Amino acid sequence: MARHIQKTPLAELELLPHVVIVGGGFGGLATARGLAGQKVRVTLVDKNNFHSFLPLLYQVATAGLEPADVAYPIRTIFGNVANVDFRHGSVREVRHAQNQVVLEDGGVLNYDHLVVATGATASYFGIPGASQYAMPLYTLVDARHLRNRLLTSLEEAEVRSASKPTTLNYVVVGGGPTGVETAGALSELMRLVVKRDGLRLDPENIHVILVDRVERVLLPFPVSASAYAEKHLKSIGVELQFGRVVVEVTDHSIRFEDGDEIETAAVVWCAGVTAAGTLATAVAEEHGPGGRVLVEPDLRLVGSTNVWAIGDSAAIREGEGFLPQLAPVAIQSGRQCAANILAVESGQPTTPMKYRNKGIMATIGRRAAVAKVPGFGVIRGTAGWLAWLGLHLWYLVGSRNKIRVIINWTWRYFDWPSGPRVIVADTEAKA
Amino acid sequence: MARHIQKTPLAELELLPHVVIVGGGFGGLATARGLAGQKVRVTLVDKNNFHSFLPLLYQVATAGLEPADVAYPIRTIFGNVANVDFRHGSVREVRHAQNQVVLEDGGVLNYDHLVVATGATASYFGIPGASQYAMPLYTLVDARHLRNRLLTSLEEAEVRSASKPTTLNYVVVGGGPTGVETAGALSELMRLVVKRDGLRLDPENIHVILVDRVERVLLPFPVSASAYAEKHLKSIGVELQFGRVVVEVTDHSIRFEDGDEIETAAVVWCAGVTAAGTLATAVAEEHGPGGRVLVEPDLRLVGSTNVWAIGDSAAIREGEGFLPQLAPVAIQSGRQCAANILAVESGQPTTPMKYRNKGIMATIGRRAAVAKVPGFGVIRGTAGWLAWLGLHLWYLVGSRNKIRVIINWTWRYFDWPSGPRVIVADTEAKA
Repeated sequence: MARHIQKTPLAELELLPHVVIVGGGFGGLATARGLAGQKVRVTLVDKNNFHSFLPLLYQVATAGLEPADVAYPIRTIFGNVANVDFRHGSVREVRHAQNQVVLEDGGVLNYDHLVVATGATASYFGIPGASQYAMPLYTLVDARHLRNRLLTSLEEAEVRSASKPTTLNYVVVGGGPTGVETAGALSELMRLVVKRDGLRLDPENIHVILVDRVERVLLPFPVSASAYAEKHLKSIGVELQFGRVVVEVTDHSIRFEDGDEIETAAVVWCAGVTAAGTLATAVAEEHGPGGRVLVEPDLRLVGSTNVWAIGDSAAIREGEGFLPQLAPVAIQSGRQCAANILAVESGQPTTPMKYRNKGIMATIGRRAAVAKVPGFGVIRGTAGWLAWLGLHLWYLVGSRNKIRVIINWTWRYFDWPSGPRVIVADTEAKA
Repeated sequence: MARHIQKTPLAELELLPHVVIVGGGFGGLATARGLAGQKVRVTLVDKNNFHSFLPLLYQVATAGLEPADVAYPIRTIFGNVANVDFRHGSVREVRHAQNQVVLEDGGVLNYDHLVVATGATASYFGIPGASQYAMPLYTLVDARHLRNRLLTSLEEAEVRSASKPTTLNYVVVGGGPTGVETAGALSELMRLVVKRDGLRLDPENIHVILVDRVERVLLPFPVSASAYAEKHLKSIGVELQFGRVVVEVTDHSIRFEDGDEIETAAVVWCAGVTAAGTLATAVAEEHGPGGRVLVEPDLRLVGSTNVWAIGDSAAIREGEGFLPQLAPVAIQSGRQCAANILAVESGQPTTPMKYRNKGIMATIGRRAAVAKVPGFGVIRGTAGWLAWLGLHLWYLVGSRNKIRVIINWTWRYFDWPSGPRVIVADTEAKA
């Protein structure tokens, strides 16, 4: 039985400096945790009432995990923290001059500090049809829609295949970690449903194709790691088409620069992210790469004294370039932001953000992964995969979620029947 | 590792009598299982690709269980059965003369036997506004929508309560087992979220009200069981308003015959079911009570030789009345239907359906239940509750689902943090 701590009465909180954090991802949570129990009032705003564990979203989309396995109610995280409140809503407008945030439902929040932690969304690079027909994988709803699309396409294909041979092409665009993980899981899902669920489809006619304009998968990794990943992807049935430029997406096809066209059952978009369209756009006039907010080394918006940006929303300089949009960057910048807000409030100088590189990793199917860890070099194979499993479980919020994820992984690993391969539509179908 | 049995090739199956079963609930599954491995071809049609375990739907709605915990892919159930195929779709039309079923997607199924197992839906008895504003609880999508409504109403109430005291009334209409279970779980959810998630709401201002026009809860049970249930419901905070007739539902209120009106945060409709609007309507001209198909004692549609109806879709005579719409009736009639179809095909006489009464039960919150079991009388309290737990786990399809449900129940029982209290909307909210 856990303790139950009363929330500090609002009348008392109103005497404290008010920090409004917009976004309950890795960055926003880290900031709020850093401010928990301190002499500030914190309001965490998110359009969802839950934190989403984005690194496992592709497994929800490929029916390996349930949506709630990777979601955790934000209120529960701070249920026992007296000075942190949650507000369910979206930001409509920021009034810098008045230090006010206006929400879509008309609510107004007066802030002393505003933290922009709204993350990023899929970037389609202006490719015709891509934003309309390609399926992104950036939210829980995205994941559910993609899962429904994948499973429905198989149902439809079985019906069609009774009269004529049917080929199914699933194209994943983007050869970075997300694309590699999605393509691997997708290929395994396809084998599983045909074998285990007895679909009347020839596995030979189902193709999972990973496409990118660059020359190799996992570009941020060393060449040897890419070669290993490519070999393993091929061994689990993923076809690689690299050095190919996508110029158009339609509802049933994808077209390349060389004029070649592939008929598609679904196009999954893992090609890149942008902070544009989120609060990052509203909060500043000039932006860094990918629509990100340009910040000072202490994470304050350039030219501001009390607006901060962290994680995927922020363009944080490191040497000649910027820090990558990764979970460890979001977590570390969130912590630094909290420390700097407390420093400002106590009249101390702020500290510049300094990133401790935790490395990068990607899993490829059920028994392989590659990781590049500073000081360790490249880890791959089963060791890399076990490291991947452990780290993801560690960072997943909530022990109930951890247990449920372990059960689902065990089920999938041994090919036991079921797993959440259910099509739960937005609204009820006709009886 | 389980065996993998190849599906019988379609060319071979086409030589066998074709049984088309519409509906993958308890009845439809029992029929298909009874025909598995026999000299017939079976096609099971459902608008969902999964079987829903309806007895636990109220726990999905009250954020105790996940949607996929009570759903099981139908294909997986019959993945190892050579002569049973699944078809994802809804029926548009039945052509009796041609022995054809036409699906919404234009597909045509020729049948030798047609089994109507489409179940029932909520009945609103023509009460103005009820079908529009009251929330039914008959499908997984219903359950998700209700959960979203409940959790969202709390978020909105917290915002409103900052400026003025806010009262929340959740009205459950219908004092049968579903209404009792829903009201009990709803009341526990409300206490949990206020305490555990630190919502700034006064529990005294949240009311869960169970309403029915009859005089006592659980009318099919003996008076002593009703009295026990009423006492226990009150002890967990449910207010009972019995002998009250609902005459109108609006988006924010419910009105009674005596002119009294209650402002509502949500109205949950557990007041009754009808087979009208399902395939039962299309298949026959005359109907029994609740829009059910009138059948002969061997479950054949009155006047037909090869159309059958079972479970909630069928009005099956017993003595002067009809069998109740319960899971055990659906399962037993499904088995009998399968046996009778095989009898017809082998030139044997059919056998009349004879119901072996398994009793009825209802759970009330976390540690109490009442059960009426023939030969045992009434069981109540913790013993009844343990019986309820065991039986529901037993009938839940899939060992993965069983394990996950046990975990979720354990979490809820001990009030541990989290549980799937997430609002996953139909479509993505604005950033």
